[in-house]
Formats: sequence, structure tokens, C-alpha cells
Amino acid sequence: MAEANSQPRGPRVGVYPGTFDPITNGHLDIIQRATRLVDRLVVSVARNAGKGPLFGLDERVEMVRAEIADLPANGTVIEVAPFDSLLIDHVRGVGGTLIVRGLRAVSDFEYEFQMAGMNARLAGDVETVFLMAAERCQFISSRFVKEIGRLGGDISSFVPPRVRRRVLDAYAAGAP
Amino acid sequence: MAEANSQPRGPRVGVYPGTFDPITNGHLDIIQRATRLVDRLVVSVARNAGKGPLFGLDERVEMVRAEIADLPANGTVIEVAPFDSLLIDHVRGVGGTLIVRGLRAVSDFEYEFQMAGMNARLAGDVETVFLMAAERCQFISSRFVKEIGRLGGDISSFVPPRVRRRVLDAYAAGAP
Amino acid sequence: MAEANSQPRGPRVGVYPGTFDPITNGHLDIIQRATRLVDRLVVSVARNAGKGPLFGLDERVEMVRAEIADLPANGTVIEVAPFDSLLIDHVRGVGGTLIVRGLRAVSDFEYEFQMAGMNARLAGDVETVFLMAAERCQFISSRFVKEIGRLGGDISSFVPPRVRRRVLDAYAAGAP
Amino acid sequence: MAEANSQPRGPRVGVYPGTFDPITNGHLDIIQRATRLVDRLVVSVARNAGKGPLFGLDERVEMVRAEIADLPANGTVIEVAPFDSLLIDHVRGVGGTLIVRGLRAVSDFEYEFQMAGMNARLAGDVETVFLMAAERCQFISSRFVKEIGRLGGDISSFVPPRVRRRVLDAYAAGAP
Amino acid sequence: MAEANSQPRGPRVGVYPGTFDPITNGHLDIIQRATRLVDRLVVSVARNAGKGPLFGLDERVEMVRAEIADLPANGTVIEVAPFDSLLIDHVRGVGGTLIVRGLRAVSDFEYEFQMAGMNARLAGDVETVFLMAAERCQFISSRFVKEIGRLGGDISSFVPPRVRRRVLDAYAAGAP
Amino acid sequence: MAEANSQPRGPRVGVYPGTFDPITNGHLDIIQRATRLVDRLVVSVARNAGKGPLFGLDERVEMVRAEIADLPANGTVIEVAPFDSLLIDHVRGVGGTLIVRGLRAVSDFEYEFQMAGMNARLAGDVETVFLMAAERCQFISSRFVKEIGRLGGDISSFVPPRVRRRVLDAYAAGAP
Repeated sequence: MAEANSQPRGPRVGVYPGTFDPITNGHLDIIQRATRLVDRLVVSVARNAGKGPLFGLDERVEMVRAEIADLPANGTVIEVAPFDSLLIDHVRGVGGTLIVRGLRAVSDFEYEFQMAGMNARLAGDVETVFLMAAERCQFISSRFVKEIGRLGGDISSFVPPRVRRRVLDAYAAGAP
Repeated sequence: MAEANSQPRGPRVGVYPGTFDPITNGHLDIIQRATRLVDRLVVSVARNAGKGPLFGLDERVEMVRAEIADLPANGTVIEVAPFDSLLIDHVRGVGGTLIVRGLRAVSDFEYEFQMAGMNARLAGDVETVFLMAAERCQFISSRFVKEIGRLGGDISSFVPPRVRRRVLDAYAAGAP
Repeated sequence: MAEANSQPRGPRVGVYPGTFDPITNGHLDIIQRATRLVDRLVVSVARNAGKGPLFGLDERVEMVRAEIADLPANGTVIEVAPFDSLLIDHVRGVGGTLIVRGLRAVSDFEYEFQMAGMNARLAGDVETVFLMAAERCQFISSRFVKEIGRLGGDISSFVPPRVRRRVLDAYAAGAP
Repeated sequence: MAEANSQPRGPRVGVYPGTFDPITNGHLDIIQRATRLVDRLVVSVARNAGKGPLFGLDERVEMVRAEIADLPANGTVIEVAPFDSLLIDHVRGVGGTLIVRGLRAVSDFEYEFQMAGMNARLAGDVETVFLMAAERCQFISSRFVKEIGRLGGDISSFVPPRVRRRVLDAYAAGAP
Repeated sequence: MAEANSQPRGPRVGVYPGTFDPITNGHLDIIQRATRLVDRLVVSVARNAGKGPLFGLDERVEMVRAEIADLPANGTVIEVAPFDSLLIDHVRGVGGTLIVRGLRAVSDFEYEFQMAGMNARLAGDVETVFLMAAERCQFISSRFVKEIGRLGGDISSFVPPRVRRRVLDAYAAGAP
Repeated sequence: MAEANSQPRGPRVGVYPGTFDPITNGHLDIIQRATRLVDRLVVSVARNAGKGPLFGLDERVEMVRAEIADLPANGTVIEVAPFDSLLIDHVRGVGGTLIVRGLRAVSDFEYEFQMAGMNARLAGDVETVFLMAAERCQFISSRFVKEIGRLGGDISSFVPPRVRRRVLDAYAAGAP
């Protein structure tokens, strides 16, 4: 049996990166789960959100912040931070030791694995940790939420009420 | 930003279950990674190892114990425990809060996901955490190690030297 | 636009084959869904249930029969039939025109596809139809139900109460 | 054995949605198979066809209509309809009870499952039904047909003759 | 542009290993394709064929030999050899430089990849080459052929006539 | 045992197509492996490189040429050729008999299979051969290399030094 060495260990700090365009119930489920793993969790909102995000970076950050305020945090400090740099650099910048990713049965394992593998090469000391989404979140994605919202469908079981309001407003205001 | 509540949080305790018949470099890689996540890690050796394990439960436990003694533990206490009960009951019995599973690009996602999903139903408060195996461990499995060892192949890049010795001895002694 | 021809079409008859060792909430979900597709649904219980089923053929048939009695049938006649022949021959024997299979995100697509592809060669006029399991059934399998039941775990969210009783009784009576 | 209730059941109406840019032998195979399942089949052509379809909506509808006129309909009425709304709303608008999707061994299960899962949330009474493509259609996709056609390759084994003519004409006329 | 060096290269020798219990049209398709790659092809029949093969090693070798006699060989010498050793050792024993594996859309990639990865560790100079099965062979497997044959189904589109005869005879003679 | 016929066989010529934007260590690994299979290997650089390549066609060809000059060629002539036509036409134009594709555990099998299947229809005499990437290349992709390079990350373990220099220069010069 290995002995614990005597040096005090620093706090565990996780980074949960994404575009959050917008934040969904699926993201919130993963955030909630991640609080069990770390002492501090940084929800990191990437500026670069593919081909034209629905919401600007500030708005995405603000939406995340509003939702996490309501989460039971299990004693974990949850923060939100925008980032525009290499993920690994951002993780180090905030003192992170773990990257958290949600895994759904229908998510793109290949993309996730490739990203995790490249990051392991770039920073061997930062571990990527995959958490499994709740059953009720296995099929939720921001992309579908927007597609349904744009066409006037009911997205209330996929996103929190405030986010739903914002999505409806954005399309009412003419978002493409 | 959510406030951390003031109650002290207990230590994080992970359980890494498997049959370890025998323990491979791939298992050791995951154990090493898991020490970053938890304060105490229990490597749990299942009695039930499918259709006829090569090594008995005691021998498997002993092999795991010998190998983890050499691992840098990052301040984490690593223990070994046999178990013969429902995994979730075992996890609770040792005070675990996380189940750790290794994920390889070639592992059986479907089996892993199904098991994690069933366990989430049985014990919603125990999180299953997936860690990605190192590149050099992506293709290692106990099954192939045994198949190669049985036919006299060189397994020295897949298992530690002591384990290799045991596998060779077992087949020399006539294991089927 | 194609015209419907004037001949009356016969009733649509589906066969839902499986080993049902035992029937789970996942199976019942698929049966319920299948009633929307066909006028008559035959739940076909295969004698051959891999390496040693927990329940005998008669007992499995009886369990299925008890559970479907409670299902809202949407005007569809639901029957149960054991079979011990080639699936395609059984389908023809009961006048079936469709084979129904449940599809879970974690199910074995490769096996399912291979079976459906072979059956399409054997009987091009019998269509295999895949229905997606409900979210709450994505991770349920008879195999895990038995594994959990054998170890005394709580299977009440995976199988109906009567089936749970039978599983507990079987293991209490010393089933391996 | 469950009794059929006495109310007459309405006809089964399926919707087979897609962009059909252009319709291929693979689509026609699925349409043909779907006629076994429903009394009325609506082939629904989505206006939104990703990043710049080769053919306009009217032209795509017209091509589908021309091809289904030649199909043996098995007594099923086959219709074509453009749509620009949420799929589920369109399904309800045409009185549909089923959504039909083709499944190929190389198709994007993850996308298909996610879409079906979201639709199940939006409309629990509309079933998504997956049919397996014929062996000779397992590798056909509109995307590859266009790529090959644009470069002057022979697409005659992937699309019907009239569609082939149109694709060649479109690229001869300078389509990008 | 790299210059070819002046040393004469030896012949390319491929090994196509399997249990061939029995050889199917799918295997023959891969053998035929492999003749394009190598000057000599060894079809290597593994003694160990899982849990109880239908045919003994000699009979499997003989069936393969009879079928390849009819194949157009493209100038490639095709041989059959039984083996009971580590695959890599067998490959070296017959002077092989390549291992050939068939890949079907429904085959078990994970198993194939793991095996190829382990073999690459054991013998970095032996390349594993994957060939894609013909469309008409995408769903054929020895396992299903036996399952269908055992139940009296028509296997004539999956195996050559002589193999079909042998399968029928084996089950008529009481094979389990 | 089949007899080799007496006609001399022509040389084996492989085509390894890609966009090589830019060439990575993963590509070089596959090129190296492919030299074991063929007498002449054409590394074919597609003009069309998706949505805006980082490097122009001439620059990509030049980079490939510079790197293959350093490879041990095993007696195989390695050439580089740009192409802007249908792959199959290009293969025939250069006298190719094989198409070589790298396969990673995280690569897009579905896309690869579909492309290979369509090509098999277009040219049944040209075989697509899949080679497995080395362990250390399982997670490398041009896409991630560019993403990391653009953000100033260290790409030196993914691409050769000269390519790394070019990527850095391109982004320093303002590439988007």
C-alpha cells in the first residue's frame, strides 16, 4: 500500500470549456456533476464559437453566470471566464489541473478523443476527465436547441427559462 | 458566481474496479492518473472475472499491491481491495464518491456506458469518471496479454516485469 | 403522385423477437411503441437464450404474457409465441410482415445490422424496423438486470414488479 | 393476450423528411420500403438544405415527384410536400404519425439519434422509425453524388437517369 | 522526389489469418482482393476457433484449399496453412510481410484495431492491411451462416456450394 | 493450391490522396508504411481543401516534396502530384492500382467507408487499402495542428520542423 506523502496538496481546479451558445440543461448537469470533483470549477466560454454564434461572447458569459448562481455548489467555487487562447494555456492561466468534458452516448467521441489526445501531448500534467450526462440530457445539444427555437418549437425542456427567453428574443429580433 | 458554502468537505475517494487478470501497464496508467483526482483511491479487484480467470483472486490482489507500491502517489493513498458484491454497494462500503474507468479509443464504449448508466440509476450520488488512457496504452488489454503470453509471445511492453514473470510461470505450469 | 391501387391490403403484422430473460421496462417500451405500427404484434420468445438463461422458455413466455396484459394496446392485438426455428421461418409462420427491433444508443449496432442484413437476404419481403428506446430505457439490459439482481441490488426501476419478484426468487432459490 | 379495442383506427401516415438534393437510389429504396409500413407516405422536402443546395426547392420537389410516380406503391398513397417549418409541426400538419429515416451502416447514427431523441421530447406521440438501406445503397449519399457529378464522374449507379441528367446539366451550366 | 535504391526487393508475402469455420463468400472476396497486393498469399487457418468450431482444423483447411483452387489468382501464388502459434510468429515463419484483414461496416473495429495495435508492438516490420469487403459481403459472417444453417435456412448466397453441402451435412449428422 | 500464371505482373502503384494542409507526422507515418506495399507511391495533393486551406496548392505540394525526400523509401519511388479531378480518374491517370488511406481509432470511419464504397462502384479494379496509424499518431490531425498553431501552441510533436516553421510564419503573416 502506497503511503501518502506529507506535502499538502493544492486545491483541485477544473476547467469546463465550451461555447455555451447557449448554455443548456445538459451543460448545467455536467457543471453540477463536476462540482463533486473539484474545489474550484471554471466554466470557460470560448470566444470562437464556430460559424457565427447566436449570442455574443459577453452575452454567453452572462447567461452562464446567471444560471450557475442557482446551482447547489457542494462547497465548490464556480466561476465563469471567457477565453480566446489555446485551451491548455487558459487552463494554466487559471491554475487548472483538470479539463472536464461531458460525454453523451450520441456525442462525437472521435472529436473528443482527438482533442483530449492532442491536449495530453501539449500538457501531460493536465488530465481530461469525462463525465456522463444524465439520461434526460443524452440528446440535448445547443445546435438542435437553436434549430428548434428558430422554427418556433418548444425548447423549454432543454434550456432554463431565462435562456429560453433569450433564444426566443434573439430570433424574434431577426437572428438568422 | 456561486459561493462555496462553509462546511468542510470530506476527502474525495475513488474506486477503480476491474478484474485485473492480470494488471497491465494500461491499468497502472489509469491508476496514476486517478491519483490526481482523489485523496484516496481504492483499486477494487472483482472476484468474478468472467469465464475462468488465469489468476485466483488473492493472486490478482497481490499483483496489484506489488505494482502500486512503486507508483508515485501524488499524496494520494492507494489501497487494494477484493470485492464480490454489487459494485455500488462496494463503493459505499469503502466510502467512495467516484468510480474511475479508463477509456481507450478501442474500448467498448457501449458496455461502459450501459454500466455507468445503470449505476447512475442505482446510486445517483456516485459519479462515474472516465479517464483517457495514454497513447502507448490505447491497445493494451488483459485478454490479449494472456493470449500472447500463452503462445510464448513477448509481453514485456504491456505488463510490468513481475507480472510478465507470473504470466509465463502460469502457462509454463500448464494453465489452459 | 402515385395512386393507391384498389386491392385491399392485409393487416400489418409485426414480430418482436428476443430472449426476454427476463422482460424489462425497455422491452415493454418497445412493445408499446410497436403497437403504433402494426395491427397485430407477436412478441416472440426464442428458446435459445445464449449460455444458460435464468428462466426456462415457459416461464419467460408467461412473464411476457402477464406484462403485456396491462399495456394499452392502441387497438393492436398483442400475442406471445415461443419459437425455436429460424427467425424468418417463424415470422412467415405467424403471417408477419415486419420484424421490430429496439435501438438504444448503447446497443450493439453492428450485431443488429448484421442480423438485419442477413435476414434481408433470406426474406426480402420482410422489413426490419428499428424503434428508438425511450430516454429512461437507454441503458437497461436483461444482462445487467440479472447481474444486479444476483448481487442483491435494487432492480425496481428496470423491470416491472412481478418480474422483479421472480428474479429475486430465482436467485434466492440458488440460481447461479 | 391483450384485446384490440373496438374503435376503428385511422390510417397510418408516415413522413420521410430530407433535403433530397438530389433524390438518390438510396432514398427511393427507403421510400419503397416505407410503403409497407403506412397507408399514406409524405416525402417531405426541406427548404433549408445546408450550405447552398445544388437544386432549388421547387426543382427538388419536382424531381422527387417524377421518380415516385414510377414506384410500385403497394397500395400506399405517396405524396410530396415541401416544408420550411419545424419537422414535428410539419408532421402534425399533414396528419403524420410516424417519421421514417433510412439507416446505413455508414450513416451518422449519432446525428440521427440526437434528432430522434429531441423529436421524441417535442412530440411523444410521433414515432421515429428507422429502416435499413439495401446492401447496394449502403454507401450512397447525395453529397458524394454531387462531388462525383461535379468532377464528371459516372453517377448512373447512384441516381435514376432523369436525376443524373439534371445533375450533369446543372454542372454544365456552371454550378459551383 | 525520393530515389528508389538499387537493391532488389524480395517478393511481397501476405498472410490472411482466420478460423474459416467455414470459409464464406466474404472470405473469398477478401482473398481475391488481396491477390492484388502480394506476390504470395498464405491463407492461415487458426487451430483455435473459439468455443467449439463446427469443423475440425483439417476439414477447414481442406475447404479453403478447394475454394481457392477456383479463384483467378492474378499471378499470385495462394497457399493454405494451418497454424497454432502466435500469429506474428507464424507470419515470420512463412516469410510474410503483411497481415491482411477484411473490414466490414459492421465488423468489430475495436477488436480489429486492438489486435493490429498489439501486433504492431510485437513486430513493427509487419504491416496490417485492411481491405474493405464488397457490398454484397458487408453482412456475411461465419457465425450467422452456422446459425442459419443449423436451423435449416438457405445459406446459398453466403457460402460456395461445396461449403453449403458440408454445413448441411454437419448439422444433419447432429452437430450441436 | 492455385498456380501463379506466367505473365509478368506490372509494378504495384499506390495513390495516397489528401489535402495535406499541412502534411503532418501522421501522414509521413502512413507514407512510410505504404512504401512496403507498392513499387511506386504517388502522394496526391487535392486542390480542393475544404473551406479555405491555410496553404495554397503549390505550397502544400512543395512541403510534401521536401519531407518525403528525407524518408527511407524501401526501394519504392515516391512522387508528389497535385490533382483537381475525380480521385478515380487521377488514380488511373498516374497508373495507380491501389488507393491508400490511413486509419486512426478516432478517424471518421463512416466517411472513409462511404468514400471507399463509392469508389469501388466507380472503379472495381482499384482497391482501397487502409493502413493503421502508429500509436503516437493516433490523435494527430491537420485541423487540430492549425488550431493549435494559430493560437501559438507548440506543434513540434505533430509536424516536422520545416512544416512547423511554415505554420508559424503563416499565422505571423496574418492568416485567419
